[in-house]
Amino acid sequence: MKQSVAILGAAGLTGRELILILARHPWLEAAVLTSDRYAGERVAQVYPELDGLSNLSFEKHTLNLPRECPVLLATPDDVALQAVPELLERGHRIVDLSGAFRLTPEIFRKTYGKEHPAPSALAAAVYGLPEIARERIRSARLVANPGCFPTGCVFILHALGPYLDRALGVVVDAKSGVSGAGGRTEDAGFAYQNVYENFRAYKVLRHQHNPEIQLHSNSPLPVQFVPHLLPLYRGILSTIHIIWQDSPPDVETLLRDAAKKEIFVRYRDNPEDIELKKVQHSNYLDLSCRTLGSATAIVSAIDNLQKGAAGQAIQNLNVMLGLAEHAGLMIKPDAENGVPE
Amino acid sequence: MKQSVAILGAAGLTGRELILILARHPWLEAAVLTSDRYAGERVAQVYPELDGLSNLSFEKHTLNLPRECPVLLATPDDVALQAVPELLERGHRIVDLSGAFRLTPEIFRKTYGKEHPAPSALAAAVYGLPEIARERIRSARLVANPGCFPTGCVFILHALGPYLDRALGVVVDAKSGVSGAGGRTEDAGFAYQNVYENFRAYKVLRHQHNPEIQLHSNSPLPVQFVPHLLPLYRGILSTIHIIWQDSPPDVETLLRDAAKKEIFVRYRDNPEDIELKKVQHSNYLDLSCRTLGSATAIVSAIDNLQKGAAGQAIQNLNVMLGLAEHAGLMIKPDAENGVPE
Amino acid sequence: MKQSVAILGAAGLTGRELILILARHPWLEAAVLTSDRYAGERVAQVYPELDGLSNLSFEKHTLNLPRECPVLLATPDDVALQAVPELLERGHRIVDLSGAFRLTPEIFRKTYGKEHPAPSALAAAVYGLPEIARERIRSARLVANPGCFPTGCVFILHALGPYLDRALGVVVDAKSGVSGAGGRTEDAGFAYQNVYENFRAYKVLRHQHNPEIQLHSNSPLPVQFVPHLLPLYRGILSTIHIIWQDSPPDVETLLRDAAKKEIFVRYRDNPEDIELKKVQHSNYLDLSCRTLGSATAIVSAIDNLQKGAAGQAIQNLNVMLGLAEHAGLMIKPDAENGVPE
Amino acid sequence: MKQSVAILGAAGLTGRELILILARHPWLEAAVLTSDRYAGERVAQVYPELDGLSNLSFEKHTLNLPRECPVLLATPDDVALQAVPELLERGHRIVDLSGAFRLTPEIFRKTYGKEHPAPSALAAAVYGLPEIARERIRSARLVANPGCFPTGCVFILHALGPYLDRALGVVVDAKSGVSGAGGRTEDAGFAYQNVYENFRAYKVLRHQHNPEIQLHSNSPLPVQFVPHLLPLYRGILSTIHIIWQDSPPDVETLLRDAAKKEIFVRYRDNPEDIELKKVQHSNYLDLSCRTLGSATAIVSAIDNLQKGAAGQAIQNLNVMLGLAEHAGLMIKPDAENGVPE
Repeated sequence: MKQSVAILGAAGLTGRELILILARHPWLEAAVLTSDRYAGERVAQVYPELDGLSNLSFEKHTLNLPRECPVLLATPDDVALQAVPELLERGHRIVDLSGAFRLTPEIFRKTYGKEHPAPSALAAAVYGLPEIARERIRSARLVANPGCFPTGCVFILHALGPYLDRALGVVVDAKSGVSGAGGRTEDAGFAYQNVYENFRAYKVLRHQHNPEIQLHSNSPLPVQFVPHLLPLYRGILSTIHIIWQDSPPDVETLLRDAAKKEIFVRYRDNPEDIELKKVQHSNYLDLSCRTLGSATAIVSAIDNLQKGAAGQAIQNLNVMLGLAEHAGLMIKPDAENGVPE
Repeated sequence: MKQSVAILGAAGLTGRELILILARHPWLEAAVLTSDRYAGERVAQVYPELDGLSNLSFEKHTLNLPRECPVLLATPDDVALQAVPELLERGHRIVDLSGAFRLTPEIFRKTYGKEHPAPSALAAAVYGLPEIARERIRSARLVANPGCFPTGCVFILHALGPYLDRALGVVVDAKSGVSGAGGRTEDAGFAYQNVYENFRAYKVLRHQHNPEIQLHSNSPLPVQFVPHLLPLYRGILSTIHIIWQDSPPDVETLLRDAAKKEIFVRYRDNPEDIELKKVQHSNYLDLSCRTLGSATAIVSAIDNLQKGAAGQAIQNLNVMLGLAEHAGLMIKPDAENGVPE
Repeated sequence: MKQSVAILGAAGLTGRELILILARHPWLEAAVLTSDRYAGERVAQVYPELDGLSNLSFEKHTLNLPRECPVLLATPDDVALQAVPELLERGHRIVDLSGAFRLTPEIFRKTYGKEHPAPSALAAAVYGLPEIARERIRSARLVANPGCFPTGCVFILHALGPYLDRALGVVVDAKSGVSGAGGRTEDAGFAYQNVYENFRAYKVLRHQHNPEIQLHSNSPLPVQFVPHLLPLYRGILSTIHIIWQDSPPDVETLLRDAAKKEIFVRYRDNPEDIELKKVQHSNYLDLSCRTLGSATAIVSAIDNLQKGAAGQAIQNLNVMLGLAEHAGLMIKPDAENGVPE
Repeated sequence: MKQSVAILGAAGLTGRELILILARHPWLEAAVLTSDRYAGERVAQVYPELDGLSNLSFEKHTLNLPRECPVLLATPDDVALQAVPELLERGHRIVDLSGAFRLTPEIFRKTYGKEHPAPSALAAAVYGLPEIARERIRSARLVANPGCFPTGCVFILHALGPYLDRALGVVVDAKSGVSGAGGRTEDAGFAYQNVYENFRAYKVLRHQHNPEIQLHSNSPLPVQFVPHLLPLYRGILSTIHIIWQDSPPDVETLLRDAAKKEIFVRYRDNPEDIELKKVQHSNYLDLSCRTLGSATAIVSAIDNLQKGAAGQAIQNLNVMLGLAEHAGLMIKPDAENGVPE
C-alpha cells in the first residue's frame, strides 16, 4: 500500500505538477488536495489533461489531515506562514514550496520589511537542496523547498565556494519562461500579445530570490542577479558570469566532480549543449562552462516546475521518507549512475 | 529626382530590409538590386509582402554600377572583401554591412586567422556608429556598418568609457532573435522544433563580435560577451553588467546625457521598460539602468535588422550624403528632439 | 497641405494602425485622436514604437471636431451608434470601423436582439468593401467598414454569386490571430499560457459576423461559419469549402478575373501559396482555389488589422475623397496593375 | 517479467514517443530499438530528455529479432512494405505505424500509382482504430495503425455512418502542428521563420490521408479534406462540417453515445471546450458538436504523436496481447469509466 500525501494549494501550477508526479510514484499517492477556488471539482474537470491520473476532488483549505500524512505546501507565502506551525504541532512532516521558510530571520526582515511570524518553525527549517543538504533533509520535519531561480545557480556557486574569494565579481543573468515568472492569467503583462515575440528584464537587481541565492550559495562576494522573461512557458536558463582576480581555478573539473555524485545533475561538454528542450518535464539540472582568460561563463538549465519546484519537492520527500531519491521522478530503478539509496 | 542607390546582396534578410526602407525614403531610391540566387525574379515574387513597394528585378552580382551611385553591400564577408577595393577605385562611396572592414589588421588576423586581404581599403574604413563617429562618417568613402550585437552595447560602453577603469569587470549578456543569429532556413538548429519553447547560449565567449565590441567600446577592461538565441524573430536585448571597484560613477546621468543628444537613442526611466516590442521595426536604441551597491545593470534593446543592420546603414548613408540623418527612418521632419541636420 | 482627419477611439488596436498608416499618407494626416483611457498622453508614450511618427496627444472623447474634417470611428459599437447621427448632422463624412452600421434593420434586430437606435443613419450607410461597392462609396456620407472575417470571404462569394445556386453547401472555416479575435489583455483566454501551443474554435456557428457574411455575399444558400483562434497575433486565413450539385463552374477563372481588376486582390496559382506571412502588414487579399470533382476549396488570407480594418478604412476614405485608392497603403503611384484613379 | 517489444525506426518522432510510453508501461518493455542513423548511440545521447528512462542503444535496422517478440514498425512506408512479409513469416505480430497497409489494393494503386508489393500481407491487415475494430484487432497478426488525420475524424464519421446518406456534403478542415505535418528539420518550410506567426493550407484536396478517411469512415458521400499547418508543435484539431438535406439527425446524442463506451473518447458539452491543450501528451480524442438549421459543426482534438500515432499503437498492442487497453497510457487501473478488459 502506498503512503498517503496531502497537497495544500493543489490547483496552482506547482500543485498540478505535484499531482502529475505523484500519479506515477511507485510508493506515494496524493490523498488530500485542497484548493479554495476549485473546492468540489474533480481534478479532471480543472485539468482535463490529467483525466485518468487522479480520481480525487479538490476540497477547501484545511489543516485537518490524515494522521502522520506528510504535507506538500504549494500555497502562497502568507498561507504557509500560518499553516506550518500548526501542522508541525500536529506532527506532520512538511515540504513547503513557498518562500516563507528559506531565509534567516534577519534576511527575511530585510527582504520583506517585517518580522518573520513563525521564528521557531523557521529555526527548524532545512533548505531543501538535496545536492547540498541531503543528510539534514533526511531527518528534517520542515523542508523549505528552494525557489526556481536559486535552484539554477546555488548548487553551482556552492561547488565553487572555496574558490570564490579569488573572484572579483559574480553575476547571475537568468532567463525564465512564463510559468517561472509568476504568469497569472489575469495580469496584462502575461497576455499573449505582451509576451510573444517579446523579451524583457524584470525586477532588475531587486528580485526576492536574490537574498536567497546570496544566503545559500555561501558566496563571499555579492551575487548580482537579473531575471528576464522569455516568450515560452517552461524552463529557466541561467548564465553565471564570474570575473577572476588572477588565474581562475579549474572550474570545469570542480563542476564535473560535483555533478558526478548527483543523480539529477548532468555536466555536459559544451555550454552550447545546455538548452531548455533537454530538461523540460524532467528533474535534471544540466550545466557546463567555459573559461577564457580571467572570465568564466557557466550555463545551467532546469525545468522550473520540476527541478525548480514540484520535482525537487518530491525529491526532498523521498529523502525524508527514506525512499530512493529518484522514486517517481522518471529515473528507472536500475539506473547505473549511482542512485543514493 | 531621387538619388539612385545600389544594393549588392539584396535578397537576404538585410537586403530585404534595405529595399523596404528605401521604398519609403524621401530622397533615395534603390536602382540596382543584385542576387545570384534570385537573378531575373521580381522583388514581389521573392518577397510578396513587398509587392507594390518595388518594381525592380534582382540581377546577377556585378560591380558595373551607375556612375557615382552609392553602394550598400549586404553580401557575405568574402564577397565584400573582394568587391570593396574595386568599387572604391571606381569612385563609389560604400556602406558595407558585412564584418569585413570593422577591425584593425591585427585584430582581424587574430579573429579570422588570416591576413586582411584589402589592407588599404581597411585603412580608409570608418566604423559606422553615427552616435560616436558622425563627423568622420560624413566624409568617409567606406563605412563599416557595425554588427548587430556591438550596436546594442558599444555606444553605452563608449559613454561610460572614461569611468570604466574604475570597474572590476564588464559583462555583456546578449539575447537575440533568430534573424540576428544567422537563422538560415536550411540549418536544423533553426528548425521550428528546435527554436520554439527553447532557449540556449551559443559561441560562449567565442563570438566573432567580441573583438569588435572590445575594439570600438574603448573599454580598458576585457568585455566578457555571451550571446543567446531567443525563440522569436526580431530583436536583441543586451544586459550589461558592470562590477565597480568602489563607489560607481553616476551611470544613469552619464547615459541620460549621452542619449539626449541623439535622435535614435532613448533613455527610459526603468530598466523594466526596455523591451523588444518597443523597438521592433524601428531604428531606436532603447536603454536604461539600475545601480545597487557596487553593481550596475544596463539593459538595451534594438531591432537587429533596423538599428542593428539596414536602418543604421541608411542612417550612415544619410550622413555621408548630407541628408537629414533620420530621413526614411520613420522620424518626421518636425521631430522636436534635436534632429542633427 | 494635407487634409486633416479625426480618429475617435484612436488608442485601440485598430486606432493604432490608423495612426501608423496616416503617418505615411501623402495627402491625409491625423489631426485629432481621442481616447478616454489615455487622454493627455502622447502617442509615443502609449505606443513607443510609433515615436517620431506622431507628435499628437490623445484627448477625451468629443464630437467637437474641426469643420469638414472626415472622421474615422474606431470605437465600440455603442459609442458609434450614439456618435454617428450627430456627426452626420454636423456635416462630417464618416468611416465607421465598428459593427454598428453593417446590417439591415431586420438583421440587426435578429443579431443583437434589439431595434437599431439610429435607423435613418443606417439607411444612409454604404457597406465599405470597395471591391464590390466602389461607386456608392465615392459619394457616401457614412461608410460601414466591413468586419475582418467578412473581408476574408465576401468578395469571393460575391464573385461566385451567380453560380452559387448550383451549390449544395457553402462553409467558411476561418482562422484568426489574437488581434482579430478581440484579444483583450485582461481576458484569461488570451493569456500567453492559454494561447501558445494551443488552438480552438470559438462561437461555433454563432459568431456575429455570420449574418454580415450572409447579407453581403448575396449567397442564395446559408453560409456556415466557424472561426478559430490561432496562436499568433496578426492575420486571418479563411478556407471556403463549396459542395456543388453537379459539375462546378470554372471557379478559378471567375476568381482570377475578379482579382485582375483590383489593386489589392492577388490571385495566386496554388492554394498552398496563400499564407499569412505574405499579407501581414499589407492591405492585400490573397486568394487561390482548387476544384476536385464536386468540391471546391478556396483559400484566402488578409492582415486583419490592415485589409480587415484600418487599411480598408483608409482605402474607403481615399475613395470618398477622390484620392488614389491605394494612397498611403504601400503601393507606389507607378504600380502597373491598374490603379483605379 | 515484462514482455519484450521491438521498435524498428525507433529514433524518429514517433519512435521517440513509443520509447517514452513503453518506459512507463506496467507489462511491456522495449528490448530492441533500431535506427540506421543513430546506430551505436544510447537513447539518452539522442534524446537527453529521456535520460534515465531507457538504458538501451540504437542498433542497425534488422529483422533478426527475439522470437515471438511483437514488433512496432515506425519506419517509412517503403521499409515497412519490405519488412512486414518477412516479419509475419518469422511469426511476429506487428503494429505498423506507416501508411503501407491501411488501404485496399485498389485504393493503394490509385493513391500511390503502383501495385501494392505485398498483397497477401495487406489482405491480412486490420485497420487499427480500436474504437471501431476492437474484436478484429484482438486476433490480428498485422495491425495497420491509422494516420493522424484519419484518427481525428474516422471514429466520428463512423458513428454517424447510417445517417450520412441524409447529408449533402461532408468537409474535414484539419489543422495540425509541425510534428503532424512531417516537420523534418532540414525542410525550409519548417524553419522557424517560416512557421512562427504564420499559417497556411497544404496538399489542398490532395492529401494521401484523404482516401484513408474515405475508406474507413464508410461515408456514402465524398469527404472533402483540407489540412493546414499551425505554428505549434503537437496536436491536430479537426472541424468537420456537415450539410444536411432536410432535418439533421440528433448528432449530439449519436456522438455522446458512441463516446460513452470508449475509455479514450471524451464528449464535451460545447465545441468551444475542445482545445489542443487539453489533449496534448495524452491518448484522448476529445469531441463536441453544434447543429444550427441544416448545418452541423463537429470539433475534435487529438495529440498527433499519442492518439494519432504512438499512443494508439500501444493501445492496439495492448488489445492484441489481451492486456488492459489503457495499460501504460496514463489511465489508472481503477478508472471507473468502463475499462474494456
